[in-house]
Amino acid sequence: MGSQARKYFVSERSFRMHRGGLLPGLQLAYETWGELNAARDNAILIFTGLSPSAHATACPEDPSSGWWQEMIGDGLPIDTERFHVICVNSLGSCHGSTGPASPHPDDGEPWGLRFPVLTLEDVAASTALLLDHLGIERLFALIGPSMGGMSAQAFAVRFPQRAARLVLLSTAPRSLPFATAIRSLQREMIRSDPDWADGDYPPGAGPIKGMRLARKLGMLSYRSAVEWRERFGRERIPEERKQGDAFDFDFEIESYLEAHAQKFTGQFDANCYLYLSRAMDLFDIAEHGGSVATALSRIGAERSLVVGVTTDILFPIEQQHTLAEGLAGGRGEVEFVELPSIQGHDAFLVDMDGFRPVVGRFLWAD
Amino acid sequence: MGSQARKYFVSERSFRMHRGGLLPGLQLAYETWGELNAARDNAILIFTGLSPSAHATACPEDPSSGWWQEMIGDGLPIDTERFHVICVNSLGSCHGSTGPASPHPDDGEPWGLRFPVLTLEDVAASTALLLDHLGIERLFALIGPSMGGMSAQAFAVRFPQRAARLVLLSTAPRSLPFATAIRSLQREMIRSDPDWADGDYPPGAGPIKGMRLARKLGMLSYRSAVEWRERFGRERIPEERKQGDAFDFDFEIESYLEAHAQKFTGQFDANCYLYLSRAMDLFDIAEHGGSVATALSRIGAERSLVVGVTTDILFPIEQQHTLAEGLAGGRGEVEFVELPSIQGHDAFLVDMDGFRPVVGRFLWAD
Repeated sequence: MGSQARKYFVSERSFRMHRGGLLPGLQLAYETWGELNAARDNAILIFTGLSPSAHATACPEDPSSGWWQEMIGDGLPIDTERFHVICVNSLGSCHGSTGPASPHPDDGEPWGLRFPVLTLEDVAASTALLLDHLGIERLFALIGPSMGGMSAQAFAVRFPQRAARLVLLSTAPRSLPFATAIRSLQREMIRSDPDWADGDYPPGAGPIKGMRLARKLGMLSYRSAVEWRERFGRERIPEERKQGDAFDFDFEIESYLEAHAQKFTGQFDANCYLYLSRAMDLFDIAEHGGSVATALSRIGAERSLVVGVTTDILFPIEQQHTLAEGLAGGRGEVEFVELPSIQGHDAFLVDMDGFRPVVGRFLWAD
Repeated sequence: MGSQARKYFVSERSFRMHRGGLLPGLQLAYETWGELNAARDNAILIFTGLSPSAHATACPEDPSSGWWQEMIGDGLPIDTERFHVICVNSLGSCHGSTGPASPHPDDGEPWGLRFPVLTLEDVAASTALLLDHLGIERLFALIGPSMGGMSAQAFAVRFPQRAARLVLLSTAPRSLPFATAIRSLQREMIRSDPDWADGDYPPGAGPIKGMRLARKLGMLSYRSAVEWRERFGRERIPEERKQGDAFDFDFEIESYLEAHAQKFTGQFDANCYLYLSRAMDLFDIAEHGGSVATALSRIGAERSLVVGVTTDILFPIEQQHTLAEGLAGGRGEVEFVELPSIQGHDAFLVDMDGFRPVVGRFLWAD
């Protein structure tokens, strides 16, 4: 897969993983938009959520829509006329970066469960190597939504001087039990599918049913009850669209979830999903300072923006408060914005009227 | 199974199901506590949530704890010294009442998916036959928590004169898309387990893995994020309790869910679960009056009590408001109580300090 827009950074040096284990080398896929200026100080790095690739927005080499198409571009908040924008596919993912789906150097078979435990600290450290390679010492801004916000925190606490500004969107300083329970159940759905085969399925195959169930539970946690009530109410599926099976779907909400799940499965490797999902649960910024507050106060950004959504059940608004308070204990300025979007956790992807002005204003402020 | 406390009502007459289909006869399991008075006007009927049996509290014949042990008894809010208390196992369940796990009269094999579509209107109508059999024309009170509250509404709108008081706890006038999505996903988890075998598994066997997953998702929707945060935080499972599998559980919240799921599976028939779960999604009081408000206004109770919990994500507090407003459009008095319990939907089972005084006061009021 991949596209002409996708670039690859390859490191031949062995990479020591945060919780043990060694990669003999690694590859990161990334894309860039806009020009790096002569001072090399206009770069913005974006860490993604769990599933997206580095294709955050379209470009001449790959005109297909990116996952943040309406946020990045000429005249948009992350303005490619002004900034050199980099989006990286996280280590451990399956969109061009080294991960459990990559061939193991010994036998060419997928790493599978031989891949060492992945953490977001590894995502951060490997991306720092990419920035070294690109000759970018200090970012104008580091941006992370959702899991990407955890990766961004891991990066910023490890390399406090490498980002002048920090943007954390709908994320958290660590996973709390409700979110962990959801993710743990998603992982169990995948592992319960006989086609998972203890992680040893053929490349390109795997636990389709388990992934579909996990994606549906994901959707349940990504959106909000209020949104669905407004969109679907008790709307029924017309008889002519039914399959006629026992326990066939009756309601449009069921059909909507099915369509989303179908779109997702086959596009994401199950083992990569398991590794990244666990990495979110393992993440705890407090491990970098004794407490959440202390660790966040060590982040060296001059300015930080924290944005949360009131209807987010996966990364609840209280956790955004905690982030903002912790960052305010450092030496930089902190802006905190609470958005009343009804789209829940996914609002950063879909509520562009809510997120765009906030991100744009922050990046443009002197 | 069953116990000496369990009584059975058997009707040999054919029973026409609300959405079509016929049962050639039916059996309902029930238990009673306290004496029916001479005027036969001190009876309280309790409809249960999806999974409990009729064993709501202990009695001499079965001293094991019931599912509402701290609510029913001598000196407790549902006082067995004063009231004749009846708890019925819903039609379609597997704790002694006729349902998909019962033997089909033709071949003695479980009904399985041959069982007609079940609705809570069927639960209500079959229970009315039980009351006829017991010679109880008018209940002192009809009480329903959760799914039981939907059954109670179905009963009260169909038989407006048969309950003087109505108690609806943590329930809803109909399912909204978020709750339907959760239940639909639970059903899909069960159906995705190869051991479900399209509903044709041997009696006592079935989709253990699917039921375990469904129960865990149930727990996620029954409790609240706040409670888990307080109880579990990021507490880890000690190394010595780990199995050592890849993707083994790391956090105590995962262990807690596993323990609950293990307890549940094997105790509830999978097909019965599917039928009752769908019955909740199909329920819409509006079908009995053109709108939710009109239907509720037709309920003839002289007094109604509606109790909801602010942290309930399955039956959110807004739906309790809707219930109270609708009932207030009728000729009876309505009391509405909003409880700030942190236990979410399950609070009616565990927050006894919250629920007991409210229910007790309502039943004792002149």
